[in-house]
Amino acid sequence: MTAVGIDAIEIWTGNLKLDLPGTFAPQKGEDPEKYTKGLGLHASSFPDSYEDIVTMGANAAHRLMERKGLEPDDIGRIDVATESAFDNSKPVSTYVAGCLEQVFEGDFHHANKGERKFACIAGTQSLDDAYNWIKAGRNRGRGALVIATDTALYARGDAGEATQGAGAVAMYIDEDPDLVELSAEQGYGSADETDFLKPNQQFPSVDGKRSVQVYLARMREALEDYEQVAGDVHPDDFAYAPFHTPFPGMVRKAALLAYRHVIRDTSIEDELADEIGRQPRPEAFDDDEAYHDALREYMDSLKETDRYQEWYDATIDPTLSISRNVGNWYTGSVHVARISALKQALEDGRDMTGETLLVGSYGSGAQAEIHAETVQSGWEDEIEGLNVDEQLEERYDLEWADYEEIHDAHNHDVDSDVEEFTTPESEFVFDGWGRMGERKYRYVE
Amino acid sequence: MTAVGIDAIEIWTGNLKLDLPGTFAPQKGEDPEKYTKGLGLHASSFPDSYEDIVTMGANAAHRLMERKGLEPDDIGRIDVATESAFDNSKPVSTYVAGCLEQVFEGDFHHANKGERKFACIAGTQSLDDAYNWIKAGRNRGRGALVIATDTALYARGDAGEATQGAGAVAMYIDEDPDLVELSAEQGYGSADETDFLKPNQQFPSVDGKRSVQVYLARMREALEDYEQVAGDVHPDDFAYAPFHTPFPGMVRKAALLAYRHVIRDTSIEDELADEIGRQPRPEAFDDDEAYHDALREYMDSLKETDRYQEWYDATIDPTLSISRNVGNWYTGSVHVARISALKQALEDGRDMTGETLLVGSYGSGAQAEIHAETVQSGWEDEIEGLNVDEQLEERYDLEWADYEEIHDAHNHDVDSDVEEFTTPESEFVFDGWGRMGERKYRYVE
Repeated sequence: MTAVGIDAIEIWTGNLKLDLPGTFAPQKGEDPEKYTKGLGLHASSFPDSYEDIVTMGANAAHRLMERKGLEPDDIGRIDVATESAFDNSKPVSTYVAGCLEQVFEGDFHHANKGERKFACIAGTQSLDDAYNWIKAGRNRGRGALVIATDTALYARGDAGEATQGAGAVAMYIDEDPDLVELSAEQGYGSADETDFLKPNQQFPSVDGKRSVQVYLARMREALEDYEQVAGDVHPDDFAYAPFHTPFPGMVRKAALLAYRHVIRDTSIEDELADEIGRQPRPEAFDDDEAYHDALREYMDSLKETDRYQEWYDATIDPTLSISRNVGNWYTGSVHVARISALKQALEDGRDMTGETLLVGSYGSGAQAEIHAETVQSGWEDEIEGLNVDEQLEERYDLEWADYEEIHDAHNHDVDSDVEEFTTPESEFVFDGWGRMGERKYRYVE
Repeated sequence: MTAVGIDAIEIWTGNLKLDLPGTFAPQKGEDPEKYTKGLGLHASSFPDSYEDIVTMGANAAHRLMERKGLEPDDIGRIDVATESAFDNSKPVSTYVAGCLEQVFEGDFHHANKGERKFACIAGTQSLDDAYNWIKAGRNRGRGALVIATDTALYARGDAGEATQGAGAVAMYIDEDPDLVELSAEQGYGSADETDFLKPNQQFPSVDGKRSVQVYLARMREALEDYEQVAGDVHPDDFAYAPFHTPFPGMVRKAALLAYRHVIRDTSIEDELADEIGRQPRPEAFDDDEAYHDALREYMDSLKETDRYQEWYDATIDPTLSISRNVGNWYTGSVHVARISALKQALEDGRDMTGETLLVGSYGSGAQAEIHAETVQSGWEDEIEGLNVDEQLEERYDLEWADYEEIHDAHNHDVDSDVEEFTTPESEFVFDGWGRMGERKYRYVE
């Protein structure tokens, strides 16, 4: 059967930004390197007062449809993935469709609309649903619009406050895609975990330490499960590995763990043995603690090898460049990492057609998924069509007092009336509430 | 390729019931027939204080797995559909898996877990996702567990208060199913509507009149879309038509509209012409209003014909018997209607193998979907395995004061401490909150 995958992708950042070393760190009396080096973050995106998950999602989708010349009749399915929903019944996709119907001829009455929630992994789950729908032969010649949109805000003063972010990623999934083909093979690592949740509340309750452990444990499980169906993974198999990026420092940890896992019993382990020894094996230890101590020691050494650092710089670091400047977009994050990598490849003049990406998605609560993607021949045009740099450059740089105001403006429990910091142009904006408490939207030319 | 569909189905009702003619009507000073005849409802199910969407969903799934001899390793996907979620990030499916892992050997770490939200249609959407996943060849020999679970409560005094309900439906989707095969063909009618929503609130805001209009408009659109892909639908094509049933009176309206639509230009229209004339055609009228008046008049006459009433009694009425006694289960409702119909067929000694069901799902906001199902040879065993009558019979019959207490107990904005009315036995129960505000569960022998 023909290839199915991502034909086109677009992002829409919140129109504001918070400078972490320049504004956040001084206010907190912290060393800026706590953020730039520790977390790996330089700035976060925020939505202006007229922005929310609907406007960002609709704006990304609008840009995608315009660029690709898509009409509503080309789209048979609109799925929105979010953990920032503002209605417990009506899905965000209906609002997005309502927006798009304001600017396109025709309507989306024929399109199956849905909403998925599972922390940060629901974007990838929606991608999968779209892939399966086409592979099942039910798409009637149409493609699917998948939108991952979130306002990843934490309570003021929460340890996660520095990792906030807001933005949307829109993807068009179809047959013979221009960007990447998705693998049929998938690996899962999924368990009932209490690491990050929002029990009837807007901002998360987070156990930060547990959350890091769970990310690593589930990702490792997903990798093992993926290998069961797709065969052993070798570091040379893939050009880049875009991971879910709550902050780049998390991916640094995950990458080291993954590398250690995939080089075991390969010539890479042999070649590194003179320098750092072979990997500890559980059977060589009397107890688990001694084994884990040895493992940690091996990992510390591995991290310092040229071989690992070269691999990390080539395969992982390029996936983090956008994330460093926008923070966590929750459901959109892993899809931003894919764009980062391909953007770097384009800037490096690299020929990516036929190359493989190993994509690691994750959602707290908790679940990891790993699949592969094969870059398609249209990838350069697709990545050239993006305006990521302009979007990031044009954000309004918040002063501290501005930041406090805009955080309040998006806090459901605070009744505030904030002036907008930017002037919307050629975009959908929030336009007040209707008589039943519904949010209303309009397009500003 | 082999058939894919529903292999097994189970329900779990909330353990309490409210008698509408006996308890609700007298308290409201209303004629009991307002409920029994007008809405078509006799009783609603309610969750006891130790029940919620997780316990009902896990209990239905547990019963299904036990009856079918399924182990966690047989299940590669757990999707929960609900509009009663209590967490904005962590999906209900993780809690359900955590419950099931308490009573089964093995775990669900390999299973893709998810949550869908779109008012009452998300259960059918999850069924579709499972079907597509298997048809796409990604299931690795496993089936999918789909759970539709809701506590459909309204604010006290709301016009919808009489249509409340609470319960879960669990379905196992696999290849060569025992119960029904799903059609590849689907029809959609979907628009951005403001008829029923829950903007950051537990209980719905409803425009009742608009909601009825939207249900009918979207269902008609879905039927027309279905006919575009599956060919014209004729009343003789299907044995039963299970529809989403917010209350049986709604389905009475929808059935008449659907019947009028599908008999147009058939011999049935011809045969009825002597008695009630032919259906009005828009081209014969000067304006829309006159056409719609004529249409209403035709529908009023059609409803009184023996031909229509026989069809309704045979095809629609049997789908409503459970709903009449449990109220609205939101995402589970259309799946309860399917069970009602097949249960009636079993009681009638009817041979259903190879017969077709026309299934009409609906969610406010709004979207309708229509597909066909072919009854499989194992259907009798599946339906015989259910204990619906016992479950309904064993519910505790609430006095009015009890009802007020239990409504408060499930109201997120009321802090109340209610004693349970029933004693849980062989079921999962809510067991208090954990340190991060997570809900905890245990199995009671």
